Parts: sequence; C-alpha cells; structure tokens
Amino acid sequence: MNVTVARIYVTEGKHIYEKVFKRLHDQHKVNGVTVFRGISGFGRSGETHSSELLDMSFDLPVVIEFFDADEKVQEVLQTLEDIIPQCHVLTFAAQLS
Amino acid sequence: MNVTVARIYVTEGKHIYEKVFKRLHDQHKVNGVTVFRGISGFGRSGETHSSELLDMSFDLPVVIEFFDADEKVQEVLQTLEDIIPQCHVLTFAAQLS
Amino acid sequence: MNVTVARIYVTEGKHIYEKVFKRLHDQHKVNGVTVFRGISGFGRSGETHSSELLDMSFDLPVVIEFFDADEKVQEVLQTLEDIIPQCHVLTFAAQLS
Repeated sequence: MNVTVARIYVTEGKHIYEKVFKRLHDQHKVNGVTVFRGISGFGRSGETHSSELLDMSFDLPVVIEFFDADEKVQEVLQTLEDIIPQCHVLTFAAQLS
Repeated sequence: MNVTVARIYVTEGKHIYEKVFKRLHDQHKVNGVTVFRGISGFGRSGETHSSELLDMSFDLPVVIEFFDADEKVQEVLQTLEDIIPQCHVLTFAAQLS
Repeated sequence: MNVTVARIYVTEGKHIYEKVFKRLHDQHKVNGVTVFRGISGFGRSGETHSSELLDMSFDLPVVIEFFDADEKVQEVLQTLEDIIPQCHVLTFAAQLS
C-alpha cells in the first residue's frame, strides 16, 4: 500500500508537539504516530538545542512522525498549519506492508 | 548504490524487537541496523504509548531500521512475517554512499 | 520545495558526530539538523552496540539527519568524506513544507 510519511520537526520547549499529537490522536485518528526526541539539533536560526547544554536540555529537538494515505496526510498537515512553523515538515512516499 | 530502507514499528512490551534484532543479526546479517525508542506514539488501536504515562513507560514505541539491497530487504521482511503484525513496516528507496 | 534528506550513521564512541555537527553548524549552515541516539544497532562488522550491553553503553548508534537543497547536501557530504566511513550515509528525496 502506498503511503506518505510526514516528519514534523519542532522543539520540546514550545509545547507544539503535545498539541500536534493530541490533534493527530483525537481529531484525525491517523495511523502510526511515533514521536522521537533528538539529543542535539539546530534549525534555520542556527541556535543549537542539545542535551549537553544545560539551558537547552529542556528544549530538545522532537520529531513527530506519522504515515497514512497521501490525501489524508496532506489534509491533516493543512489543519496543522496554524501551529507548525513553515519549513518544518518533510513528506516522502513509502510502501506500507 | 541503490538501497531499500525498512522501518519496523512495534512497541517494547511484546519483546518483538529483540526477536527481530536477533534474526537480523544472526541469520540475515543485513547492513546497518539501528533501533530507536520513541517517547510517545499510537497505532491503529489509538492507545497511546508515552513516557509520560506511568503504566505505558515500559511499553514505548520502538523502530527497527535497516537497509540493504532491495531484494535482500524484501526477502528478510518475508521471513519476519510471523512475528511482525501487518501494516507495521515501511519501506522506501534511498541512496547509500 | 524539493529537498534531499541525509542520514549519517555512526556511533558515539569515535566522536565523529560532534565533528560532523560542528561542521554542519559552523561551516555549512545547513537547514534542519537533528541528531538521534539509538538504543541498539550493528553495522557491517556485526558488532552489536546496545544500551543493554554495559561495555557498549557509551558507544551507542547515533544518526545525524539533515536536509537542504540536493546540490547543497551533495556538496556538504563531499566535504565530510574525510571523517565519515564509506557506506554510512543514506540520502533520499522529500518535500519540505
């Protein structure tokens, strides 16, 4: 089955991931949501978020990954545009088996 | 070199990942196996597995990722069908360098 | 926007990831770098690196993921060839939104 995988890149500090997770769970009921915490990272600002930096250790990178039929994923991502900053979502095609 | 990446989505509780890992290592000797633990997730049942939920903190999402030549990956996945539930494996094409 | 995602697979022990991270940050200023620590893994040598093995718990798998325009990613990967062992980088196409 062809699916689209979405990976949403945020950090813990702004509590975006809890909001996104709640919507994916309660409202959209998408298949296969997994949240990963990174140990280091940086975005366009260049500011490093790392478990080795004490003041950043509560604001680590978080990736929310989910997959579903392409149409569903695109629809879900549109409804999340109000909480996810631009250029923070990757999508790619995969096969589910 | 063209490879296929497989990502197998399970949870820790059922000890599937140890079995899969052992087979990938001992029997199939595939290249590049990495296991990641997620901090939250849910599947088709909608039941949330999260490090923030005490009773779920020993049953967190686990992703077993590996890559190899496509033929090898498909062959390996077939031999794992007895232990991995349906619709828990994503595959996609990538370049190895 | 079409981007290329790169995933670089190393282990913690050799301090490769800190060097790669520093270059990606200071020199290349790529978009979207996230580093993940795995809980288990093995490479071509077959040697298992696992958080459950005491002598390997400081040498866990680490994945450095970043994305940018394809040309930029290829250029960056070339400059990293001196520190990343061969056959440890996956690249694949994705959409950024």
